Amino acid sequence: MPVFRSSDNPIITPRAVRPSRPDFEVIGAFNAGVARLGDEVILLLRVAERPLNPDPGVYLAPIYDADRKQVVIKQFEQDNPEFDFSDPRAIQTARGVYLTSLSHLRLARSRDGVHFAVDETPALFPETCYETYGIEDPRITQIGDTYYVNYSAVSEAGIVVYLASTADFRSFRRLGAIFPPDNKDVTIFPEKIAGQYYALHRPSSGFGRPEIWIAESPDLLCWGNHRHLMGLREVSWDDGRIGGGAVPFRVKEGWLEIYHGADRLNRYCLGAVLLKADEPWKIIARGEQPILEPQAAYEASGFFGGVVFSCGVLCEEDKVKIYYGAADTSIAYAEIPLEDVLKSLK
Amino acid sequence: MPVFRSSDNPIITPRAVRPSRPDFEVIGAFNAGVARLGDEVILLLRVAERPLNPDPGVYLAPIYDADRKQVVIKQFEQDNPEFDFSDPRAIQTARGVYLTSLSHLRLARSRDGVHFAVDETPALFPETCYETYGIEDPRITQIGDTYYVNYSAVSEAGIVVYLASTADFRSFRRLGAIFPPDNKDVTIFPEKIAGQYYALHRPSSGFGRPEIWIAESPDLLCWGNHRHLMGLREVSWDDGRIGGGAVPFRVKEGWLEIYHGADRLNRYCLGAVLLKADEPWKIIARGEQPILEPQAAYEASGFFGGVVFSCGVLCEEDKVKIYYGAADTSIAYAEIPLEDVLKSLK
Repeated sequence: MPVFRSSDNPIITPRAVRPSRPDFEVIGAFNAGVARLGDEVILLLRVAERPLNPDPGVYLAPIYDADRKQVVIKQFEQDNPEFDFSDPRAIQTARGVYLTSLSHLRLARSRDGVHFAVDETPALFPETCYETYGIEDPRITQIGDTYYVNYSAVSEAGIVVYLASTADFRSFRRLGAIFPPDNKDVTIFPEKIAGQYYALHRPSSGFGRPEIWIAESPDLLCWGNHRHLMGLREVSWDDGRIGGGAVPFRVKEGWLEIYHGADRLNRYCLGAVLLKADEPWKIIARGEQPILEPQAAYEASGFFGGVVFSCGVLCEEDKVKIYYGAADTSIAYAEIPLEDVLKSLK
Repeated sequence: MPVFRSSDNPIITPRAVRPSRPDFEVIGAFNAGVARLGDEVILLLRVAERPLNPDPGVYLAPIYDADRKQVVIKQFEQDNPEFDFSDPRAIQTARGVYLTSLSHLRLARSRDGVHFAVDETPALFPETCYETYGIEDPRITQIGDTYYVNYSAVSEAGIVVYLASTADFRSFRRLGAIFPPDNKDVTIFPEKIAGQYYALHRPSSGFGRPEIWIAESPDLLCWGNHRHLMGLREVSWDDGRIGGGAVPFRVKEGWLEIYHGADRLNRYCLGAVLLKADEPWKIIARGEQPILEPQAAYEASGFFGGVVFSCGVLCEEDKVKIYYGAADTSIAYAEIPLEDVLKSLK
C-alpha cells in the first residue's frame, strides 16, 4: 500500500499549542476531528494538559469541578501505597480512577491542509458534570450547513458520547449524551439512509469484547436498533480492540470507513472496511492488512508509542487524506490513493 | 414498614414449571414482569433451565445457536484447569464466559393475583444472535392497548436490552436492541411526559459504577439524552449496585419507582424513590431504608440466597403489590400500603 506521509510530519505538536492556563503544560495535541469550512481545513484537536508540578513527592490529577465551574487539582502522595501510579495516564485509588491530564478541544485552521494555525484558546472546554475528567477524540459530521461534533465525555460517572453542533466553530451548542457509558469511537454518517441516521459506536462490555456496533436514529439525538457490526480477528493486527475512526464517506461502491484496530500489545493501526450503500449494517469487504501502521519515529514513540489513530479523513481528488494522532502526542498527515484503499479490500 | 407477605409464598417455584424439553430441568422461576390483562394478572417469568447432567465429570453450558435455530450443549471437563467453575452461574474460560443455565420467558395467569397457572411452553424463547445465552428479567409497560416487554438479552456480544411488543401475550413482535451493551434493569415509564418517553437504565461502566441513569425517546425504539439519575450510598444497604426494578407508576406526588439495591456482599433489597411528575430526571425523595429485605427462608436461601428483586408491581386499592424474585429461585408476593411507602420517603 503506497502511503504518502507529509514531510512536515508531525504537522502539529504539543509545543505548537498554548496551554489554557499558565500553570499547565500541553502534553498532547492529537486525535482530531476534521472538516472543510469555506476554503479552510478545520481540525478540532484533542489537547491534553497537565498541571506543572514543582513537587516531585506528589502526583497531580486535574479535574473540572462542574459545580464551581473551575479546574481543581487533586494531589496524591507518591509514597502512599493506596495509590497505583503504574499507568502514566491514570492514578488508581480505592475510591476510583483519576486521570493525570485533562483534555479539551482546540481549533486549528489551514488553507493547504498541512500548515495549521492553532487557536490560542479552547474551542470546547469541559463544562458539564459528564466532562469533569475531560473531553476527548472528537469526530465532525457535516449535515447541510451544520457541523455535528461528537466526543468522549469522561467523568467518574463513566465515559459517555456527547453531541454538540456548530455552524461556524466559534459557538457550539451541547445537545446531550447520545450514548450511555461506557462508549467511545462514535462516527455519525453524513446523511440519512432510507430515512434514518446511522452511527458506528464502540460500547464497552464486561461480557462482550471491544468491537464495532451500528445504531440508527431519527434525529441524531436518540439512538436505537443496536447491532453488532464487526468483531476482532484472531491472530491479527486487530485482535485486541477495534473502534470506528473517521466519519464514513461515500464512494461509488458503498460507505468507506477507516477504523482503528489494536493488537493485544496495544499497537494501534488503521484499517478499512466497505459497508453497503443502502444497508450500512452489512459489510461488503474488510481489508486483511492495515492501511497505515505506526512506523515513523513520531508514531513509534511518544506519550503512548506505537499508535496511529484517526478521528477524521477527507476524501478529495481521489485521495484519502488522513489526519491522525501519532503516539497519543501529535497530529500527523498522510495520503493514500483511494483506488489503493479500495483495491486492498478485494 | 408493615410488609404483608403472602402466606402462599413462594407463589411460583421451579417445580411448578414444566421444562421446555425433557432433558432440561427448571432451576429458577423468578424476576417476573407484571401486567393486568382483562380480569387477570399476567406474570412473564424468567425461567432458568439447565441440561440434566448424567456425567459428574463434566459441566454443561446450554447455548442457543441462532444460525441453526436450536439449543446446543457445550461440555467442560471438570478436571481441566483452564476452566473456572467457582461461580455456580457461569464457567470462565480463556475464550470467554459461558452460563450454566439458559433463561427464557414464560407466561403465568391468575385471577386473584396469588394463585397462578403457568403455561406449559415458553412465551418468548431465545431467537436472535443477541439472545444465545438467554433472555432475562422482563419488564412490562402498558401503553394504550399495547404491552411493551423489555428484557436483558445475553450473548457473547454482551448484554443488550431488547424490546418486544404484544397485544395479547400470545404473539410477540421483536423491535430491536434499545440499549447497547452492557445494560440491564430498563424500566420504561407508561406514558409520555412533555412529549417524550422516559426510561430508567443501568449501564455497566468500567470507569463508573453500577448506578441508575435516565434516558428519553420519541418512539420507544431510539434513546438519548442519557443522564445520571441516582448513585450508590456509602455504608448503606445500596452501596454495592443499584438498578431500576418495577416500571415506575404515577402517584399524586410524582412517579414512584421501586428499585433494587445490593450491598457489597450482594444482599439485594428493594427501595423506593419518588421522581418529579413532569421532570422525572429530578429526585423528590429517596428512602433511607429498604422497603423489603430478604428475611423469609425462601428469600434467604436458594440458588443465589439473600435476594429480593422485583421487575414489576401493581399499585391498586392504595396498596403496592410487589411480585419479586426470591433468592434467584422463586416468585414471591408481598403487599405494602402505598401510604407507608410514601411516608418512608419523608
